[in-house]
Amino acid sequence: MPPHLTNLAKSLPSTVPFVGPETQERNNGRSFKARLGANENGFGASPKVAAAMAAASDEMWKYGDPENYELTQALAHHLGIQPGQIAVGEGIDGLLGLAVRLFVEPGATVVTSLGGYPTFNYHVAGFGAQLHTVPYKGNYEDPDALLAAVLKMKPAMVYFANPDNPMSTCWPAEDVMRLIDGVPDDVMLILDEAYGEFAPVGTLPPIDVIRPNMLRMRTFSKAYGLAGMRCGYAIGDVEMIRAFDRVRNHFGISRMTQVAALAALKDQAHLAETVKKVERCRERLYRIAEDNRLTALPSATNFVAINCGSDGAFAMRVLQELGQRGIFVRKPMTPGLDHYIRVSCGPDAEIDLFAKALPAALDAAGKA
Amino acid sequence: MPPHLTNLAKSLPSTVPFVGPETQERNNGRSFKARLGANENGFGASPKVAAAMAAASDEMWKYGDPENYELTQALAHHLGIQPGQIAVGEGIDGLLGLAVRLFVEPGATVVTSLGGYPTFNYHVAGFGAQLHTVPYKGNYEDPDALLAAVLKMKPAMVYFANPDNPMSTCWPAEDVMRLIDGVPDDVMLILDEAYGEFAPVGTLPPIDVIRPNMLRMRTFSKAYGLAGMRCGYAIGDVEMIRAFDRVRNHFGISRMTQVAALAALKDQAHLAETVKKVERCRERLYRIAEDNRLTALPSATNFVAINCGSDGAFAMRVLQELGQRGIFVRKPMTPGLDHYIRVSCGPDAEIDLFAKALPAALDAAGKA
Repeated sequence: MPPHLTNLAKSLPSTVPFVGPETQERNNGRSFKARLGANENGFGASPKVAAAMAAASDEMWKYGDPENYELTQALAHHLGIQPGQIAVGEGIDGLLGLAVRLFVEPGATVVTSLGGYPTFNYHVAGFGAQLHTVPYKGNYEDPDALLAAVLKMKPAMVYFANPDNPMSTCWPAEDVMRLIDGVPDDVMLILDEAYGEFAPVGTLPPIDVIRPNMLRMRTFSKAYGLAGMRCGYAIGDVEMIRAFDRVRNHFGISRMTQVAALAALKDQAHLAETVKKVERCRERLYRIAEDNRLTALPSATNFVAINCGSDGAFAMRVLQELGQRGIFVRKPMTPGLDHYIRVSCGPDAEIDLFAKALPAALDAAGKA
Repeated sequence: MPPHLTNLAKSLPSTVPFVGPETQERNNGRSFKARLGANENGFGASPKVAAAMAAASDEMWKYGDPENYELTQALAHHLGIQPGQIAVGEGIDGLLGLAVRLFVEPGATVVTSLGGYPTFNYHVAGFGAQLHTVPYKGNYEDPDALLAAVLKMKPAMVYFANPDNPMSTCWPAEDVMRLIDGVPDDVMLILDEAYGEFAPVGTLPPIDVIRPNMLRMRTFSKAYGLAGMRCGYAIGDVEMIRAFDRVRNHFGISRMTQVAALAALKDQAHLAETVKKVERCRERLYRIAEDNRLTALPSATNFVAINCGSDGAFAMRVLQELGQRGIFVRKPMTPGLDHYIRVSCGPDAEIDLFAKALPAALDAAGKA
């Protein structure tokens, strides 16, 4: 008998939360011409990041600082909070795993939205906890229904993304505060703000809203254009943040990642410019939807959810037809949300390709 | 009441396996002049790595391929094994954590050497298992005693590093094979070969020795000079390697890390040159020990363990006095091994500084 997986590991599916575009490219035998499916930021990182990385490239024989000291200090200074209130991790994905591991007993319940971030759900399953899901309210995560579920289910943790992925919608800070204030003290609220920089003013609660029962997740993957460097951070109470030291992979953030994130953070002018480019691109994507007699949701993120005007199967065909034409997009899979496709903002050249391919894809998909 | 840590997380110390040199530098208010303590490879990575990273730096807005496809293919080709027999991870550290998580139930027993790699022990504790330790035999991990303990304790997992860290010693492949063949089928053997490239011919079992109950761990951190990029890989049976997909952080390997590791792997001439430099540097470190009437262990790694000729407290004072003089080294802490300091190989300029500082450090430490 070979070694057996733990009972928990045995219970887990070997499916993955997301299939990467590279896998599709290998399966299709050709590259995508426009990479607009992973909520990546095709406007790219600050040129100062590339310069900083080049300057540091001869130092990669050294392990990275396991305390991520410089980056944490710079983030604290930038945000106006204490360094001890920040934990840096291998993307929000990595931090979500650590948070579940720290605060959710095997067998405990976790509340999230039905159709919410699959990688969070992956970690909940991965540490043996049970998901309780709450439907979206239209195209919005529903903070009041989440709160009602929390009060009823007494879960260990509740997840809420604002702005939301996959629907791009957001709630104003006062609604988020109602959730924050309503969640009982002993329930950990994960407030995922990955797309926060793209949201309208008034969407994010003030940064000094830090509670022992809340972890706010942010990232360099989206607005800072560094998905490929894997760097997220959790903001929370000092005691809770310190707990990450008990379980994290201390040398897990590469030295180069620390260099890149620090350089990105320092170039706030580039960030502001990116946000403007994204705003313009969202407007353009709205118009492209209109031009095809489709509707798009007003987005608080760097992607636009376009209602394909029929059911989920039709939207899937549109996605596939776009893929045939070299355009990589993704779509929600949950009934009620699955008639949308999700298109990332990016440079005009890629959006041009999408605009050109969409009418044909809709036709080929069998548009009435 | 704020959210509570899980019972397991609560039981874990908040101490960390290793304090980084940067932390010491911040505490001391000055930088080390010679960084020779972390078994890093100061000869550095291939210049082709820096070139490849520079060429890729504008692509960091894209997530890395979650399948690490190109790197895995290249490793398989290089090693002459199947891609499905390789799992890439965030350093061996990250892979050790995943292996424990997959194959060790909470409460189960794990066998390792007393004084062996602390980060492995950190993960064993982190997933709620119990360590059973076996003493070194002199300055060697003791495969026969490990095997005896395995047969007696029936653990879920046993860890063996060859070559060894922290003592730099190694066993010939035939002794390792005795362990491999002796471990019962249902016990997972972790064979840590992080330093394998530096070892004499005949140290590593043939690469086609792949068993359902063995994971061989290798890394780009040591011989390839890329500790700062965080990339290790596990070699094992296809079914066992596939299990990592159930728990890993799929997008956890940064895109840049994949670029760097691939470029490093392709420059085998640089690797060969590095190994020669390390051999020469080991010889030089042996002579420096002799010049100070100390003895060094013959090393199969990129570091040299020097017997400070007294007890652990004395060796600690030597380490501290070296630190005072700007030289970063580390030392084993386990009684029986703790009279050694451990000095990494590196460029002549850093070794010069060590050679110059050592006599004064020994004097200041109170050498008889």
